[in-house]
Amino acid sequence: MDRRPARLKTTSPLRRPGWAGRFGAPPSFFAGLAMGAAVLLGGAAAAAPILPAVALETPATGSFHLDARTVIAAPAADASALATAGYLAELLARTRGLKLKVVEGAPATSVPAIVLKRGAPAGEAYGLDVRPDGLTIESSGDAGLFYGAVSAWQLATPAPGHGAIDIAATHIEDAPRFGWRGLMLDSARNFQSPAFVEAFIDRMARAKLNVLQWHLTDDQGWRLEIRKYPRLTEVGAWRVPAGPAAAADLDRKTGRPRRIGGFYTQDQVRQIVAYAAARHVTIVPEIEMPGHAQAAIAAYPQLGAAAAPPDAPSSDWGVHPHLYNVDEKTFGFLEDVLTEVMALFPGRYIHIGGDEAVKGEWKADPAVQARMRDLYIGDEDALQGWFVARIGHFLALHGRRLIGWDEILQGGVAPGATVMSWRGLDGAIVAAKLGHDAVVAAQPTYYFDNRQAADPDEPPGRGRLVTLKDVYDFEPVPAILSAAERTHVLGVQAQLWSEHIRTEDRVSRMAFPRALALAETGWSPQPRKDWRDFTARLDADLGRERALGEAFGTVPAETPVGPQPALRTRASQEMRLCSERVALNLEDDAPVDGPRARFLVDIMNPCWIWPAADLSGVGEIEAAVGQLPFNFQIGDDIRKIVLRPPATEPGELEVRRDWCGGPVIAMLPLAPATRSQAVTRLKAPLAPTPGVHDLCMSFTRRTVDPIWVIDRVTLAPDAREARHGR
Amino acid sequence: MDRRPARLKTTSPLRRPGWAGRFGAPPSFFAGLAMGAAVLLGGAAAAAPILPAVALETPATGSFHLDARTVIAAPAADASALATAGYLAELLARTRGLKLKVVEGAPATSVPAIVLKRGAPAGEAYGLDVRPDGLTIESSGDAGLFYGAVSAWQLATPAPGHGAIDIAATHIEDAPRFGWRGLMLDSARNFQSPAFVEAFIDRMARAKLNVLQWHLTDDQGWRLEIRKYPRLTEVGAWRVPAGPAAAADLDRKTGRPRRIGGFYTQDQVRQIVAYAAARHVTIVPEIEMPGHAQAAIAAYPQLGAAAAPPDAPSSDWGVHPHLYNVDEKTFGFLEDVLTEVMALFPGRYIHIGGDEAVKGEWKADPAVQARMRDLYIGDEDALQGWFVARIGHFLALHGRRLIGWDEILQGGVAPGATVMSWRGLDGAIVAAKLGHDAVVAAQPTYYFDNRQAADPDEPPGRGRLVTLKDVYDFEPVPAILSAAERTHVLGVQAQLWSEHIRTEDRVSRMAFPRALALAETGWSPQPRKDWRDFTARLDADLGRERALGEAFGTVPAETPVGPQPALRTRASQEMRLCSERVALNLEDDAPVDGPRARFLVDIMNPCWIWPAADLSGVGEIEAAVGQLPFNFQIGDDIRKIVLRPPATEPGELEVRRDWCGGPVIAMLPLAPATRSQAVTRLKAPLAPTPGVHDLCMSFTRRTVDPIWVIDRVTLAPDAREARHGR
Repeated sequence: MDRRPARLKTTSPLRRPGWAGRFGAPPSFFAGLAMGAAVLLGGAAAAAPILPAVALETPATGSFHLDARTVIAAPAADASALATAGYLAELLARTRGLKLKVVEGAPATSVPAIVLKRGAPAGEAYGLDVRPDGLTIESSGDAGLFYGAVSAWQLATPAPGHGAIDIAATHIEDAPRFGWRGLMLDSARNFQSPAFVEAFIDRMARAKLNVLQWHLTDDQGWRLEIRKYPRLTEVGAWRVPAGPAAAADLDRKTGRPRRIGGFYTQDQVRQIVAYAAARHVTIVPEIEMPGHAQAAIAAYPQLGAAAAPPDAPSSDWGVHPHLYNVDEKTFGFLEDVLTEVMALFPGRYIHIGGDEAVKGEWKADPAVQARMRDLYIGDEDALQGWFVARIGHFLALHGRRLIGWDEILQGGVAPGATVMSWRGLDGAIVAAKLGHDAVVAAQPTYYFDNRQAADPDEPPGRGRLVTLKDVYDFEPVPAILSAAERTHVLGVQAQLWSEHIRTEDRVSRMAFPRALALAETGWSPQPRKDWRDFTARLDADLGRERALGEAFGTVPAETPVGPQPALRTRASQEMRLCSERVALNLEDDAPVDGPRARFLVDIMNPCWIWPAADLSGVGEIEAAVGQLPFNFQIGDDIRKIVLRPPATEPGELEVRRDWCGGPVIAMLPLAPATRSQAVTRLKAPLAPTPGVHDLCMSFTRRTVDPIWVIDRVTLAPDAREARHGR
Repeated sequence: MDRRPARLKTTSPLRRPGWAGRFGAPPSFFAGLAMGAAVLLGGAAAAAPILPAVALETPATGSFHLDARTVIAAPAADASALATAGYLAELLARTRGLKLKVVEGAPATSVPAIVLKRGAPAGEAYGLDVRPDGLTIESSGDAGLFYGAVSAWQLATPAPGHGAIDIAATHIEDAPRFGWRGLMLDSARNFQSPAFVEAFIDRMARAKLNVLQWHLTDDQGWRLEIRKYPRLTEVGAWRVPAGPAAAADLDRKTGRPRRIGGFYTQDQVRQIVAYAAARHVTIVPEIEMPGHAQAAIAAYPQLGAAAAPPDAPSSDWGVHPHLYNVDEKTFGFLEDVLTEVMALFPGRYIHIGGDEAVKGEWKADPAVQARMRDLYIGDEDALQGWFVARIGHFLALHGRRLIGWDEILQGGVAPGATVMSWRGLDGAIVAAKLGHDAVVAAQPTYYFDNRQAADPDEPPGRGRLVTLKDVYDFEPVPAILSAAERTHVLGVQAQLWSEHIRTEDRVSRMAFPRALALAETGWSPQPRKDWRDFTARLDADLGRERALGEAFGTVPAETPVGPQPALRTRASQEMRLCSERVALNLEDDAPVDGPRARFLVDIMNPCWIWPAADLSGVGEIEAAVGQLPFNFQIGDDIRKIVLRPPATEPGELEVRRDWCGGPVIAMLPLAPATRSQAVTRLKAPLAPTPGVHDLCMSFTRRTVDPIWVIDRVTLAPDAREARHGR
């Protein structure tokens, strides 16, 4: 350790949960690190195959020969270091086929060894030295030692392959840019198994991500066992999906439509929390209030503020009207719930949602209005401010901190609250300028339910294209903030909202590889980031993940390749939407089992454009169309959906020439499609239209529900011309 | 009116008080105007002598001969137009010596006339046409007609002079960029007479400024008669100034120290409000809460939260500890006061201060803490949020809107509150991003108690130099705001805090000419602004103001000229401060009557540097020193003042060579100065120090009070050398 050219100052420990900025490492530590690395790395050699990129590396001469004789040594009686040694051994065994022995205490000098040492870098920071005689990882922090081990594993697996490997000598000093490097998993809209959640956490840990925000409650489901309120999961954890297919899918036992869902028992949660802690991931549970509460209110209607409370969790998406009321009994309920939540989750932060609470029910409820008068609160927004501040105070009395979506800034931000900035960077800017901490969770870039490619096979999700490079290039710290204000930006987090991510496999594919780009933004000093270098290291990383059996989305090309102009068939994803008001890549609701079609559609205006279609010789158009339930709660916006009256009762697919106000050149009646819940192929002649034209395709209809959608469209030659042997 | 090349869209009236952005002219109106003018004005001829610059002018051929035969015609039975005609006639009489007749209805066609017409431009917008046969002003808005008349007056007075004048034909279309163009007058720290306030309003109106924020209450004084609470002015309007000079200035009648102060009776206020309304200036009264309340609490101690309430208004400056308590009776008092305030001031906005409320008293008061528990409010910042929101709700119930300093954003901004952004632009950024309106009142640029020049004769004030050009160049709309967010920026306002502005004459000199730069930022389209052009028009404007007998500060040179290096005497203002922690240009507290010395001093570190003084041949140093009462409430910061122990009991002025840690080359004992309340000249030999050196001068002392200050320093030749005839 003597040859190091410079030493990072890592004397301030990043205590867990001390990664909370002001109470952990002084934020200037990160700032200083980023500056230092920028200077020290100038002209460095090719980066080590570590992802996220390390802060500082200094190549040396020679190499270390790692083979099956190597042992992994951890200090005697150091349980955390020994666990990390075991974790490293397991990773090497699974990916490199090297089964290394873990030894406690100093190894024999004759034996080549990976040595875990306790030493100067603290918290999440670590030093790593590769010399011909061994590999040493040093940190006084448990997390630092763990991250050093992950880096060592990555050094040993630069490419797929098994058996011994030479690791080039190097000296690494590494520490994260941000203390909060998170993913949010929405287990409320669609449920994932405990085993999946654990595998997901494991994967995060390998990318040095350290916070899992766990979205456990919402209108569509309550996923956490609360001992005092069993109906939360008895009632709140189950629902019948929207649409006729699900309604027709009867449960043999009950004779009623089959319900989907599930919840986590407290035993399961304790196990998952321990699993995460062993991997230095903190779980931040999210219990939504005062809105996004339909599942809870369905379970205990006395909690609600509606004249007619809901009797089941919702199977719709969007913003629902139901809020908790403000009775003292309701606060008693919330405090009881949070008390059980705090007992399960030892981390400092508790997320209370706070987003998208429309105030209609509060305005209409005499009891809420009376309470407002008692409290001298003149306005429902201020009431929400009071509500959130009160919960924040309750959490603070128990040594926890409240975090919420950036709406908590409105109507009065709770003292000491941390803000999760989802509406771009605005929340972070406002929070920091008001002296509050913030985490950047900005949509659209950090909303990983957005599509990452325009491929028709891309998993369902929101329609916006957010590529790997978009995520990589996004700088989360707003340039307008002063140096002091920047210290309030705790870090970054990407969201996996699961309305349209129905399966665990799809969670994996939507999360990765984009989470690796996020991880590098969250960990590596900003000047260290380099897209080309990242993609090279990404290759190595995806190789490792493949070896571990993990799924990930197709790594999209840097510049998306559009469909070939000559193609005669286009999927909805290969066409342009006429508008992108609420563009979604939706999955069909049928069949209940087996693969379903996916449609890219603007639910506010289902209309597609095939640009520059060569119609010469085309005489027929074939369209595969589907229908989707309109299960979107969009409030008054529903009146903004324009319905064009149909010629026949079930409606038609109209094809117009050149633009959406152009002449109709084909008309495909929907009658044959009304009988099927899945995709139906329709066919119609196309008026002879030689030359290249844009085609605009949309539906006539009388109702918003169902949403008629195009699956794919084929332009076929004129049957007569074909017959004539053209 | 037919030859106009383009017409400004002025169909949206700027109703008073409809200048409130969202409820008056749509802000896009201003935006569109700015853009349009930028295009249309490209390549226009020299600007008309109107200040602020008009939005759009199109020179035409010929000119209008204005002489004593000209009449001013206003529509029959149009009281507002007739009043404006009279106002114009008076201005022309006073500045040009032309006594024009005002006629009601259309003038005889043979008589040359200035015609006020009702027509298309609405609100504050107007059209103005100069043709050989007459001058026409057109607006459907009373304010627009008034501003057109002011512009006509300025066209007629391009330079000092009397009698007839030819006005070049032109077509003008004009409308303001912002609806809020304000000055804040602090009548609490030092009182101004009603006559002065009216003259000040008149002057604002001539610059098309339209809002006077009137700071009527503070720790040092309560200036507004409240019928229900007479002690507010009996007790709260009077104080003994700080320092021994004032303490020794006994009132013959009472035998006690003479008190200064005053207040406005409700009759006087009604007259001032009417005077302002006739000039289209809205007065926004400011009643400070929950802090800056010592004068009120001294009058009614039951309003306070202190164990030992104050018994008189403060004669200190700074941030005082006293807050209103949160008893229902106190809210009753505040609502009573605001009810009388609303009866006096008909404008939409009521300013409630909200700034600089330190929470120590609330934290210590059991009654406040009990109330917090009752209200489920866990934190004193949140309590202030609730306090302000409650007052905001009360005002809203009476059709008014709350405005407050940007601290109201903390602890929960009241719904619908408008934010006065004083700490730079941050308040405006945060407010706009949260959907609140904001007025940009940014320090230091818009704090006109800052010095405008480094001249020793400059009136007392804060020490920061804010030149006319600094004000002119300041762009108030934060670049980071989106187009939609920008609509929340209602306008601009400059502040005349009066701690150090003791006299009315000084208010005038500190306000003007800088208020004219502010006026142009507030009125003229942004692309229309041009510093050179402004200074040319400013000359004309100052000429008019001189003719009206108004005072204004010396127009500072664009690049301040420093003192001549060869000068052997320097005033404090001609030296450099060693630090600028709290730099002030302070007036001596003595003599009570007659001129007093002024000292530029950092009260946290009274220390001056004479840079590059040529000490060759200097053998003696003479310093005129004064002492000021330390009447600054700076809380714990007082511990940050470093006191260097003196050699003699009263202390010394130390002169050090090269830097403030350099060798002492002269030492001037303060003993002779302790006997005088004004300035004392001290003399001491200076160690022979040939060459050019920085001199660092500071005081040794045992206490922060008094503050010893340098008035001026003279370097004298060595007396012996002089004797030897050198």
